[in-house]
Amino acid sequence: MPMTQNIYDDETFFAGYSALPRSIHGLDAAPEFPSLCALLPAMKGLRVADLGCGFGWFCRWARGAGAGSVLGIDVSERMLARARAETKDVAVRYAKTDLETAELPPGAFDLVYSSLALHYVVNLERLVETVYAALAPGGRFVFSVEHPVFTAPSVPGWREIDGRKMWPVDSYLDEGPRTTDWLAKGVIKRHRTIGTYVNTLLRAGFTLAHLEEWAPTAAQMVAHPEWDGERERPSFLLVGCGR
Amino acid sequence: MPMTQNIYDDETFFAGYSALPRSIHGLDAAPEFPSLCALLPAMKGLRVADLGCGFGWFCRWARGAGAGSVLGIDVSERMLARARAETKDVAVRYAKTDLETAELPPGAFDLVYSSLALHYVVNLERLVETVYAALAPGGRFVFSVEHPVFTAPSVPGWREIDGRKMWPVDSYLDEGPRTTDWLAKGVIKRHRTIGTYVNTLLRAGFTLAHLEEWAPTAAQMVAHPEWDGERERPSFLLVGCGR
Repeated sequence: MPMTQNIYDDETFFAGYSALPRSIHGLDAAPEFPSLCALLPAMKGLRVADLGCGFGWFCRWARGAGAGSVLGIDVSERMLARARAETKDVAVRYAKTDLETAELPPGAFDLVYSSLALHYVVNLERLVETVYAALAPGGRFVFSVEHPVFTAPSVPGWREIDGRKMWPVDSYLDEGPRTTDWLAKGVIKRHRTIGTYVNTLLRAGFTLAHLEEWAPTAAQMVAHPEWDGERERPSFLLVGCGR
Repeated sequence: MPMTQNIYDDETFFAGYSALPRSIHGLDAAPEFPSLCALLPAMKGLRVADLGCGFGWFCRWARGAGAGSVLGIDVSERMLARARAETKDVAVRYAKTDLETAELPPGAFDLVYSSLALHYVVNLERLVETVYAALAPGGRFVFSVEHPVFTAPSVPGWREIDGRKMWPVDSYLDEGPRTTDWLAKGVIKRHRTIGTYVNTLLRAGFTLAHLEEWAPTAAQMVAHPEWDGERERPSFLLVGCGR
């Protein structure tokens, strides 16, 4: 059985992750969140699941936006411990579950959300089928993953080439594990093409509603000139689809 | 009004294009054609339009596969002259039309096809809306374009980096013209993201059926080891959608 590496419970990784702006300041520090937010339905009364909920920022946001109930799922005990400590709301529940083997009750949710978690999952097809079955008719699945241009390279990183900041790509069509040293040594992510993400959704029965290769807006670029690389190559893929 | 550059009637370009394997040997020399073909419906009796038909290879193939009638559209007089000369079939017609301004009769086609032409079109939105209106309910739109990873770079080309053959990417999120020297100097293509292609289709009313970032099969790699770069970065994007 495939197993997702639980790097978030690695002490070094967790310390590094906890120091990221989005871990300290939450959704306000996630520059792609407004774009992801635009793909969400009206939240009032919805039954929501968040796959890879981390510290629970989105779970609490969803309740604040009117969701009726929220289930946050994560494999990391350290993250769930902080999520539980920071959540005072009985309509938000957390469960420790590996996304590789997660079971969800059929038709129990109106929205399934996932931020930057699915690129860790080995068996994406199984998870997408589980999400489809867990949604009520008319339900939505909205998620972000690291963009394949970002995950593809055998040795990822910026290079200056003829005076231009460039992102050299190789191995794009060779899907599978990619090991990088991000916050800790030996973090394993799964590279797959946009085609694979899209066709896996369509095969499961989803209808695609929106696909976005995120880039900072002009206003964001003014506020954060250090994000200039984000216009050179995409780092996030945002997807909205419906059952 | 935007105008597509008609580079195919440039003498130097046309001579170079005519010498390409796919211009001499047709669809058999287009390695992505089998994958595109897999997105086509059963052709028997279909009314087909081919946008950017070139020498008419696909138009004749479609008739051979059972299509009832085929309309090939292209802006290049040189290409249409050869297409007409090589087509002895009254059910295949050709028309000189710029895809920027093309008008198609509403509901008149069951399949609209386009191979490697839409990345020349400035006003994609208008053309996609025209195609949608030209399809009968249940009709299909199947096309290929140059992949955004291929079109994005300000200076496209392979580089050897740390002993690896890599394709440096920049400007991915900056959509617009890209001028390259391919067969002739100053060939202008339009770079747009996969997100833009997909969302333009969805906004027009299409349902996405398949999206593929083409790569050669293992068998093709054995027969053509010189295509090794095609596994490093995608050069073709294939899309199938339905009205």
